[in-house]
Amino acid sequence: MAEDNVIFVGGKDVMAYVLAVVTQFNSGGDDKDVLIKARGRAISRAVDTAEVVRNKFMPGVKVKDIIIGTEELEGSKGDMIKVSSIEITLSK
Amino acid sequence: MAEDNVIFVGGKDVMAYVLAVVTQFNSGGDDKDVLIKARGRAISRAVDTAEVVRNKFMPGVKVKDIIIGTEELEGSKGDMIKVSSIEITLSK
Repeated sequence: MAEDNVIFVGGKDVMAYVLAVVTQFNSGGDDKDVLIKARGRAISRAVDTAEVVRNKFMPGVKVKDIIIGTEELEGSKGDMIKVSSIEITLSK
Repeated sequence: MAEDNVIFVGGKDVMAYVLAVVTQFNSGGDDKDVLIKARGRAISRAVDTAEVVRNKFMPGVKVKDIIIGTEELEGSKGDMIKVSSIEITLSK
Protein backbone atom coordinates (compact mmCIF):
# COMPACT_ATOMS: atom_id res chain seq x y z
CA MET A 1 0.00 0.00 0.00
CA ALA A 2 1.31 3.46 -0.89
CA GLU A 3 2.16 5.71 2.04
CA ASP A 4 -0.51 8.27 1.06
CA ASN A 5 -3.24 5.73 1.81
CA VAL A 6 -2.39 6.00 5.52
CA ILE A 7 -4.31 8.39 7.77
CA PHE A 8 -2.66 9.08 11.15
CA VAL A 9 -5.28 9.96 13.77
CA GLY A 10 -4.19 12.38 16.50
CA GLY A 11 -5.79 15.11 18.56
CA LYS A 12 -7.98 16.88 15.99
CA ASP A 13 -11.74 16.57 15.69
CA VAL A 14 -13.00 13.22 14.33
CA MET A 15 -14.51 14.89 11.25
CA ALA A 16 -11.06 16.05 10.11
CA TYR A 17 -9.96 12.40 9.86
CA VAL A 18 -13.28 11.26 8.36
CA LEU A 19 -12.81 13.82 5.58
CA ALA A 20 -9.23 12.61 5.01
CA VAL A 21 -10.36 8.97 4.71
CA VAL A 22 -13.23 9.80 2.33
CA THR A 23 -10.88 11.92 0.22
CA GLN A 24 -8.40 9.02 0.01
CA PHE A 25 -11.11 6.60 -1.11
CA ASN A 26 -12.39 8.99 -3.76
CA SER A 27 -8.93 9.61 -5.21
CA GLY A 28 -8.17 5.95 -5.83
CA GLY A 29 -9.46 3.04 -7.90
CA ASP A 30 -12.29 0.70 -7.03
CA ASP A 31 -10.19 -1.78 -5.08
CA LYS A 32 -8.52 0.78 -2.83
CA ASP A 33 -7.65 0.23 0.86
CA VAL A 34 -7.21 3.02 3.41
CA LEU A 35 -5.26 2.40 6.63
CA ILE A 36 -6.20 4.35 9.77
CA LYS A 37 -3.43 4.42 12.39
CA ALA A 38 -3.42 5.76 15.95
CA ARG A 39 -1.56 5.47 19.24
CA GLY A 40 -2.54 5.88 22.89
CA ARG A 41 -5.67 7.87 23.63
CA ALA A 42 -6.23 8.59 19.93
CA ILE A 43 -7.16 4.90 19.45
CA SER A 44 -10.78 5.63 20.44
CA ARG A 45 -10.87 8.43 17.85
CA ALA A 46 -9.52 6.07 15.16
CA VAL A 47 -12.43 3.69 15.83
CA ASP A 48 -14.85 6.66 15.73
CA THR A 49 -13.35 7.69 12.37
CA ALA A 50 -13.83 4.23 10.85
CA GLU A 51 -17.40 4.00 12.18
CA VAL A 52 -18.46 7.46 10.96
CA VAL A 53 -17.02 6.76 7.48
CA ARG A 54 -18.93 3.46 7.27
CA ASN A 55 -22.21 4.59 8.81
CA LYS A 56 -22.62 8.12 7.46
CA PHE A 57 -20.56 8.61 4.32
CA MET A 58 -19.57 5.34 2.62
CA PRO A 59 -21.92 2.45 3.47
CA GLY A 60 -20.09 0.14 1.06
CA VAL A 61 -16.81 0.41 2.96
CA LYS A 62 -15.87 -2.61 5.06
CA VAL A 63 -13.42 -3.26 7.88
CA LYS A 64 -10.86 -5.54 6.22
CA ASP A 65 -8.47 -5.96 9.15
CA ILE A 66 -7.70 -4.60 12.61
CA ILE A 67 -4.29 -5.02 14.24
CA ILE A 68 -3.33 -3.90 17.74
CA GLY A 69 0.23 -3.63 19.01
CA THR A 70 2.66 -1.86 21.29
CA GLU A 71 5.18 0.77 20.20
CA GLU A 72 8.11 2.20 22.12
CA LEU A 73 8.53 5.96 21.99
CA GLU A 74 11.24 8.16 23.47
CA GLY A 75 9.84 10.25 26.33
CA SER A 76 10.74 13.86 27.07
CA LYS A 77 13.56 12.78 29.41
CA GLY A 78 15.11 10.27 26.99
CA ASP A 79 13.32 7.35 28.66
CA MET A 80 11.38 4.77 26.64
CA ILE A 81 7.59 4.75 26.94
CA LYS A 82 5.36 1.93 25.72
CA VAL A 83 2.10 2.91 24.04
CA SER A 84 -0.62 0.81 22.47
CA SER A 85 -1.39 1.24 18.80
CA ILE A 86 -4.12 0.29 16.35
CA GLU A 87 -4.24 -0.11 12.57
CA ILE A 88 -7.67 -0.33 10.97
CA THR A 89 -7.73 -1.27 7.27
CA LEU A 90 -10.87 -0.15 5.44
CA SER A 91 -11.64 -1.35 1.92
CA LYS A 92 -14.36 -0.41 -0.56
CA MET B 1 -18.98 -18.13 25.27
CA ALA B 2 -20.29 -17.87 28.82
CA GLU B 3 -21.10 -14.39 30.07
CA ASP B 4 -18.45 -14.53 32.79
CA ASN B 5 -15.71 -14.64 30.15
CA VAL B 6 -16.53 -11.04 29.22
CA ILE B 7 -14.58 -8.15 30.77
CA PHE B 8 -16.19 -4.71 30.39
CA VAL B 9 -13.53 -1.99 30.38
CA GLY B 10 -14.58 1.37 31.85
CA GLY B 11 -12.94 4.17 33.77
CA LYS B 12 -10.75 2.25 36.25
CA ASP B 13 -6.99 1.83 36.01
CA VAL B 14 -5.78 -0.51 33.24
CA MET B 15 -4.28 -2.93 35.77
CA ALA B 16 -7.72 -3.64 37.28
CA TYR B 17 -8.87 -5.00 33.91
CA VAL B 18 -5.57 -6.81 33.26
CA LEU B 19 -6.03 -8.65 36.56
CA ALA B 20 -9.63 -9.53 35.63
CA VAL B 21 -8.54 -10.96 32.26
CA VAL B 22 -5.67 -12.98 33.76
CA THR B 23 -8.03 -14.33 36.45
CA GLN B 24 -10.54 -15.39 33.78
CA PHE B 25 -7.87 -17.24 31.82
CA ASN B 26 -6.57 -19.02 34.91
CA SER B 27 -10.03 -20.14 35.99
CA GLY B 28 -10.87 -21.89 32.69
CA GLY B 29 -9.64 -24.75 30.56
CA ASP B 30 -6.81 -24.71 28.03
CA ASP B 31 -8.92 -23.60 25.10
CA LYS B 32 -10.53 -20.66 26.83
CA ASP B 33 -11.37 -17.32 25.19
CA VAL B 34 -11.76 -14.02 27.04
CA LEU B 35 -13.69 -11.15 25.45
CA ILE B 36 -12.72 -7.55 26.30
CA LYS B 37 -15.47 -5.02 25.55
CA ALA B 38 -15.42 -1.22 25.72
CA ARG B 39 -17.26 1.84 24.44
CA GLY B 40 -16.27 5.42 23.69
CA ARG B 41 -13.10 6.71 25.32
CA ALA B 42 -12.56 3.43 27.14
CA ILE B 43 -11.67 1.80 23.79
CA SER B 44 -8.04 2.92 24.17
CA ARG B 45 -7.95 1.33 27.62
CA ALA B 46 -9.34 -1.94 26.23
CA VAL B 47 -6.46 -2.07 23.74
CA ASP B 48 -4.00 -1.26 26.57
CA THR B 49 -5.51 -4.10 28.61
CA ALA B 50 -5.07 -6.65 25.80
CA GLU B 51 -1.50 -5.50 25.14
CA VAL B 52 -0.41 -5.59 28.79
CA VAL B 53 -1.89 -9.09 29.21
CA ARG B 54 -0.02 -10.34 26.13
CA ASN B 55 3.29 -8.56 26.70
CA LYS B 56 3.73 -8.74 30.46
CA PHE B 57 1.65 -11.56 31.93
CA MET B 58 0.61 -14.19 29.39
CA PRO B 59 2.93 -14.29 26.35
CA GLY B 60 1.06 -17.30 24.92
CA VAL B 61 -2.20 -15.37 24.61
CA LYS B 62 -3.14 -14.31 21.10
CA VAL B 63 -5.59 -11.81 19.62
CA LYS B 64 -8.19 -14.06 17.98
CA ASP B 65 -10.55 -11.41 16.69
CA ILE B 66 -11.29 -7.68 16.90
CA ILE B 67 -14.68 -6.23 16.01
CA ILE B 68 -15.60 -2.53 15.99
CA GLY B 69 -19.14 -1.21 15.89
CA THR B 70 -21.54 1.54 16.86
CA GLU B 71 -24.04 1.35 19.72
CA GLU B 72 -26.94 3.67 20.50
CA LEU B 73 -27.34 4.71 24.12
CA GLU B 74 -29.99 6.86 25.74
CA GLY B 75 -28.56 10.20 26.83
CA SER B 76 -29.41 12.04 30.04
CA LYS B 77 -32.23 13.96 28.31
CA GLY B 78 -33.79 10.91 26.69
CA ASP B 79 -32.04 11.56 23.38
CA MET B 80 -30.13 8.82 21.55
CA ILE B 81 -26.34 9.04 21.43
CA LYS B 82 -24.15 6.97 19.10
CA VAL B 83 -20.90 5.65 20.55
CA SER B 84 -18.22 3.46 19.01
CA SER B 85 -17.48 0.09 20.57
CA ILE B 86 -14.78 -2.56 20.40
CA GLU B 87 -14.71 -6.27 21.20
CA ILE B 88 -11.30 -7.90 21.46
CA THR B 89 -11.27 -11.70 21.75
CA LEU B 90 -8.12 -13.12 23.36
CA SER B 91 -7.39 -16.85 23.30
CA LYS B 92 -4.71 -18.96 24.94
